[in-house]
Amino acid sequence: MGTLSVFLDVPLAKRADIPLDFYREDPHPQKVLLGHAGCQTDAGEVWIPPVVQRVLLQISQDPTLNHEYLPELGIYEYTRAATELAIGKDSRALLENRAGGVHTVGGTGALWIGAEFLCRWYNPRFLNLSTVYIAKPQLDSLGCIFQVAGFKDIRPYHCWNPVKLTIDVEEFLQTLQNAPVGSIVFLHAPEEIGLKAQEWKAVATTMEKKQLFPFFNIESQGLASGNLDKDAWALRYFVGKGFELLCAQSFSKMFGLYDEMVGNLIVVTKNNQTLIRIHSQLGRQISTTWENPSSLGARVVAMVLNSPALLYEWKLSLRMLVERIMLIREKLKEKLRILGTPGSWEHLTAQSGICSFIGLRPSQVEFLVKHKHIYLFENKQINICSISSKNLDYVAQSIHEAVLATSSED
Amino acid sequence: MGTLSVFLDVPLAKRADIPLDFYREDPHPQKVLLGHAGCQTDAGEVWIPPVVQRVLLQISQDPTLNHEYLPELGIYEYTRAATELAIGKDSRALLENRAGGVHTVGGTGALWIGAEFLCRWYNPRFLNLSTVYIAKPQLDSLGCIFQVAGFKDIRPYHCWNPVKLTIDVEEFLQTLQNAPVGSIVFLHAPEEIGLKAQEWKAVATTMEKKQLFPFFNIESQGLASGNLDKDAWALRYFVGKGFELLCAQSFSKMFGLYDEMVGNLIVVTKNNQTLIRIHSQLGRQISTTWENPSSLGARVVAMVLNSPALLYEWKLSLRMLVERIMLIREKLKEKLRILGTPGSWEHLTAQSGICSFIGLRPSQVEFLVKHKHIYLFENKQINICSISSKNLDYVAQSIHEAVLATSSED
Repeated sequence: MGTLSVFLDVPLAKRADIPLDFYREDPHPQKVLLGHAGCQTDAGEVWIPPVVQRVLLQISQDPTLNHEYLPELGIYEYTRAATELAIGKDSRALLENRAGGVHTVGGTGALWIGAEFLCRWYNPRFLNLSTVYIAKPQLDSLGCIFQVAGFKDIRPYHCWNPVKLTIDVEEFLQTLQNAPVGSIVFLHAPEEIGLKAQEWKAVATTMEKKQLFPFFNIESQGLASGNLDKDAWALRYFVGKGFELLCAQSFSKMFGLYDEMVGNLIVVTKNNQTLIRIHSQLGRQISTTWENPSSLGARVVAMVLNSPALLYEWKLSLRMLVERIMLIREKLKEKLRILGTPGSWEHLTAQSGICSFIGLRPSQVEFLVKHKHIYLFENKQINICSISSKNLDYVAQSIHEAVLATSSED
Repeated sequence: MGTLSVFLDVPLAKRADIPLDFYREDPHPQKVLLGHAGCQTDAGEVWIPPVVQRVLLQISQDPTLNHEYLPELGIYEYTRAATELAIGKDSRALLENRAGGVHTVGGTGALWIGAEFLCRWYNPRFLNLSTVYIAKPQLDSLGCIFQVAGFKDIRPYHCWNPVKLTIDVEEFLQTLQNAPVGSIVFLHAPEEIGLKAQEWKAVATTMEKKQLFPFFNIESQGLASGNLDKDAWALRYFVGKGFELLCAQSFSKMFGLYDEMVGNLIVVTKNNQTLIRIHSQLGRQISTTWENPSSLGARVVAMVLNSPALLYEWKLSLRMLVERIMLIREKLKEKLRILGTPGSWEHLTAQSGICSFIGLRPSQVEFLVKHKHIYLFENKQINICSISSKNLDYVAQSIHEAVLATSSED
């Protein structure tokens, strides 16, 4: 054989999660990673609702379950219950059989299959190539999926004003207003930074006028307010208004099952016939990508959502987690107040859920990494769950020092 | 909202597995599906090695396991053990750190990621667009994956002579000889129709001469001969010859875990640096497709392969299954001999493994479906496991009638 590789020209791919690598390699005992992907307990362990652990055990002991291939579109009891959870059991779209889910390999799998589907079939009858709008903090990670799927024009929208440290719905509406007719807009619900109902309504009105297509992402329903219905309000409002839409749903955070990749791609369209045709195309895409989804996680979710007793217990666990998150937000704000850290820290409690804009400038983030062994991701959103009673004082003190050390820049 | 769907033009996708649908809808009590995807017991249940069931239970009760995200490339203990199983623990490629696996969502996931990688990065330095050769029976199902990945020129090769009912290595070699330099050839190992070592060597020689790139598929190692090493001989021979190659590996059949989608994409290249760069690109592709693989199935495989006691027990189970398969082949041939069915049925025992060319003409297959409620897939390969002591007589008698009823066509 020749000695030259046919892969001579393959370059090293740039890794996205570099703060995680630095964190892992840092031997400092007080190091903190403020960018964990999931929910953690106060002891720094992966949070998992007790009911999920019990159901996992039950499934492994169930002699009636075999390990036969699932259908391409997955476990129906799962996709049905998951879709009901998101858009509501009484949704007219469900009653009219024009909404349904497709079981995917995690939320990313739902995004991928959805983006690929839109690239092939979305036909706004105005453009050959559609524009996709993605919120700035997610532009790198999610934009990449749409780009690989074939979209050429991917643009950011801004919803968060980093100077005022508040949401800026006016700028968002302006972007939508100026968007090419028929563009796809990627929306997050629950929206941790907290668009109010009135603001969502204005977004929907503009999107309707400009015939923009909503692609929702719902990966922490219940984790923003503690209430599953409330956190799905925006999505349900769009469905109720008659929008056709896609929604990528993930249960990783809500069930503490990150390694089982339980996702669902919800399709809401105009009528049952269109839904059947769309599902047939999604099935075909899935058959060439991963053929069938894996079952364990979806079985757990289906069992919990379809049993009133287990559902009740799971909701309680969610609420307790949300209370812990709110408490951390309060405590961090209070610590910074006591330390006399310059600036307003109201935004810490004005936002909700596990993801949060911390409101630091790049130089302050750099200070935290260099001098305090505190690691943040580039988009400057932190995971509130990464703060525990053990590291709260250290984190607050470090933020205080970072702000003071860089105050001369103002 | 307007009432017209933006998905008005989405057509209904053609389903590939139509025999399965017909089988499901057929109320006939003696109906038989000869095209199951996996291994079955004589009682018609999904075959699962007892050790796998025990390990599943053990994992669910292990308090030290959490459900944190896996790394993009998956569980290292799994990919390492899986790769060793395929190319051999003592493989020079492994010792030189130029071979390694990437944990994928099933064998299909490995094919998809591999095909997409080759489409982007395979550079035979002769052509802009490579040709892909796929064995005729798999052309429809696998060709589709390469097509979606971006390959334009996908051609079949024939290895089985449907008239002589034997393998036809000469035709295969001729195809390779005439292939454009640098083409990709998709190979199956263990190759159920039974290429002999000498024939594989001739294939390798021709492929080396024409600089053809081997993409192996190994989804039933151990299920052809009952011996794991013997069934990986061809793959190991290619690796030993210094070929760069990809190999999609699936554990669904071998572990009876169809619903957990445990796959591995093995990369063998020239040196460690190239392997690292290829893995980085594969990681990037995975991050936009399913982000992380799911863990349960890979944990089971890793535990079994890495424990000498469990490995021994699993090998015994495999051997017992293979003995059952061989016995069915013998019995079916014997029944047809006793019935005096015209033609030679030697090919039933000349082949091995669960997949088998049955050697029937289209009109005979049609007769079985129409008059006997026996369903086969279009590629005319049957799953020997679908025949049990309960339906053996009926299947043999039906084949006999089908051959007699259509004998006037000769």
